[in-house]
Amino acid sequence: MANIQAVIITIGDELLIGQTIDTNSAWIAQRLNEQGIDVVRRVAVGDTRDAILTAMDEEWLKASLIILTGGLGPTSDDITKPLLCEYFGGTLKVDERVLEHLKDIFSKRNRPVLERNLKQAEVPDNCKVLFNLMGTAPGMWFVKNGKIVISLPGVPNEMKHIMQEEALPRLKETFKSDLIIHRNIFTAGEGESNIAEKIQDIEAILPAHIKLAFLPDGGFVRLRLTGRGVDLKSLTSELETHQKAIADRLGKIVVSLEDHPIEQILGESARKNGLTIGLAESCTGGYIGHYVTQVAGASAYFMGSIVSYDNKVKEQVLAVKPETLSTYGAVSEETVREMVTGALRVLNVDYALAVSGVLGPDGGTDRVKVGTVWMAVANKQETITKEFRFYYDRERNKEMAAKNGMLFLWKFMNGKL
Amino acid sequence: MANIQAVIITIGDELLIGQTIDTNSAWIAQRLNEQGIDVVRRVAVGDTRDAILTAMDEEWLKASLIILTGGLGPTSDDITKPLLCEYFGGTLKVDERVLEHLKDIFSKRNRPVLERNLKQAEVPDNCKVLFNLMGTAPGMWFVKNGKIVISLPGVPNEMKHIMQEEALPRLKETFKSDLIIHRNIFTAGEGESNIAEKIQDIEAILPAHIKLAFLPDGGFVRLRLTGRGVDLKSLTSELETHQKAIADRLGKIVVSLEDHPIEQILGESARKNGLTIGLAESCTGGYIGHYVTQVAGASAYFMGSIVSYDNKVKEQVLAVKPETLSTYGAVSEETVREMVTGALRVLNVDYALAVSGVLGPDGGTDRVKVGTVWMAVANKQETITKEFRFYYDRERNKEMAAKNGMLFLWKFMNGKL
Repeated sequence: MANIQAVIITIGDELLIGQTIDTNSAWIAQRLNEQGIDVVRRVAVGDTRDAILTAMDEEWLKASLIILTGGLGPTSDDITKPLLCEYFGGTLKVDERVLEHLKDIFSKRNRPVLERNLKQAEVPDNCKVLFNLMGTAPGMWFVKNGKIVISLPGVPNEMKHIMQEEALPRLKETFKSDLIIHRNIFTAGEGESNIAEKIQDIEAILPAHIKLAFLPDGGFVRLRLTGRGVDLKSLTSELETHQKAIADRLGKIVVSLEDHPIEQILGESARKNGLTIGLAESCTGGYIGHYVTQVAGASAYFMGSIVSYDNKVKEQVLAVKPETLSTYGAVSEETVREMVTGALRVLNVDYALAVSGVLGPDGGTDRVKVGTVWMAVANKQETITKEFRFYYDRERNKEMAAKNGMLFLWKFMNGKL
Repeated sequence: MANIQAVIITIGDELLIGQTIDTNSAWIAQRLNEQGIDVVRRVAVGDTRDAILTAMDEEWLKASLIILTGGLGPTSDDITKPLLCEYFGGTLKVDERVLEHLKDIFSKRNRPVLERNLKQAEVPDNCKVLFNLMGTAPGMWFVKNGKIVISLPGVPNEMKHIMQEEALPRLKETFKSDLIIHRNIFTAGEGESNIAEKIQDIEAILPAHIKLAFLPDGGFVRLRLTGRGVDLKSLTSELETHQKAIADRLGKIVVSLEDHPIEQILGESARKNGLTIGLAESCTGGYIGHYVTQVAGASAYFMGSIVSYDNKVKEQVLAVKPETLSTYGAVSEETVREMVTGALRVLNVDYALAVSGVLGPDGGTDRVKVGTVWMAVANKQETITKEFRFYYDRERNKEMAAKNGMLFLWKFMNGKL
């Protein structure tokens, strides 16, 4: 059976002038995928009548499901609701439950309900209201000629809430589709082309219903196998056979077979072994600590980070010697070695990582070029240092330093250095 | 004169299954906007022949400029180059300059050049090559019937490099378009609807060539005026008159008239006044330090952050009293007061911010509900504390805490509390 095809339309001028980055679409695509619904296109258009109508007409022909986000706010640049109402031939009418909820929100926040807020309680009489517990703009579910159109607010937590509580369960009931399953091989240390070369014979014999994709990201390459079928058990077993074959071939560059980010892989490793970890960050400014604490429950193993951006903090908090800094500089093997020792002691942890580098655009010298990052990992017995070099802009260098730092610590903790 | 209309097409299955968030499009849209080119649509499609050809055919009718990103890598899921070559009726031929550059990259990285890498030096003979100094996949510039199609790699730093060095200067020469200018009013402390209500008479009299948009983001609302015209001086003056009228009406909720993020506004304030700042972070895990150091040159005023995720670190590094933690808990006015005092002393700074909260999903109690974040700001003379409450998921609560923390410190430094 063919998969259900979906299109996501995002509405809002802010997406077209680049003031907002669209994170909603990726989240929606993941959720639909889990239910065996393929997103075949994503389209972003501005807050104008013509643009929205053109998108509706064109995408209508390409999918059985259209999900629209945005354009449902209380201000005059938000025109999606009356437009959809008209498109499907309905009339706007006040929904009492939405109205009560709206008044309730404003009274809890001690704010007066304005006329334009009350308008948010008006919904087309030809749609099913998808109740929005998290905000004032309700979602809408239209059906026409067997196709479904869902309209959701653009605010991420409101969109997610309505999807999870209202739209997804309803979609599951409505569509019975092919299964789609993914299996991942998360690697570090080799480029996309080399990996592709190494496994080309395995890739060549994959059956038509299994696809392999390469997803490079900051020094890591994620290989994703996607299988389609009807029988969960046989499809899973088939995918895992290919996953294992690829992982065996790639050997030590394989970090994980789960689709987890490195901060989670690191966290699981610490938790499983009952170890505590801490950081001494200079150029990353707290970014590694941020990543590590993105994992819910990180407090079980993460003690903290000394963000010693200024050399005085390296000296006073981490006890880096002033002579080390003056002789070798802040970005040096000697400095990160003392930083990691300081972190182990000050944070009283089993394992620590220290990072100091020049991310750019300024601050490079002949001796220490922009993109140079020194790192040290240590436990009570041993310290290992390594020099990294990144070739990108400030932001990407920071990202690379953070991710490679976590990988470096993970490898050390797992005897892989 | 009408503006040039552009469409961005992004190619890659990873965008449709939600494994990658598209940040390229926002960046491209901003750059085109600065040159008076309107992005009217953005379309994302998968790595299949049909999907790419359909998108090309449809978007061709809607714009004078099409920018494609992605699908140029060395692996077999990257099919854009041969497809465009065929679309425009050309033949693939080796480009000697690209070939030399490619061999050079591999020799510098001590990696063998594989057959599939050599293929990257082949370009359609009917396009202008946009040289890619940062990577192996060259960009391409096609012209047909007065319309322009630009194909770029999806790797962000390579795409940015080619746009800046090759594509944008060429576009400037090719198109002479209307001016587009933006002016911003960056506010904090009131919702979109209240702001809209307060300025509705000003909005009502805006001329047709000036548009006002509301861009809410994490407790902030950015108002953006967009003007189109031909004369820079008169358009600027007209926009700034409306900007001033709105800012005057909104009064104290206005934080800035620049389109700068809060970390930059905070940094400018510290730099201008010759002040140093430091942080004591608990729940934000280093995220505020990350933001503060996103600003190039932050080392002039940012000393560091003590990320005291565990209570032991609060005690041992920041000298928070064990009794304070046991009596009032880590998320309390008393604790953040001692944390900020500790940060002032340990980091030896003029101004400090301390943050401790429960971001969820777990860790809430009857007394301290999920979403509660206590903050303290201090200088040597004074400490001010404030309780914040956020109502979202872990990620968004962290984002809100970080941004509101920087705003709280900025207000304190500028006598606005």
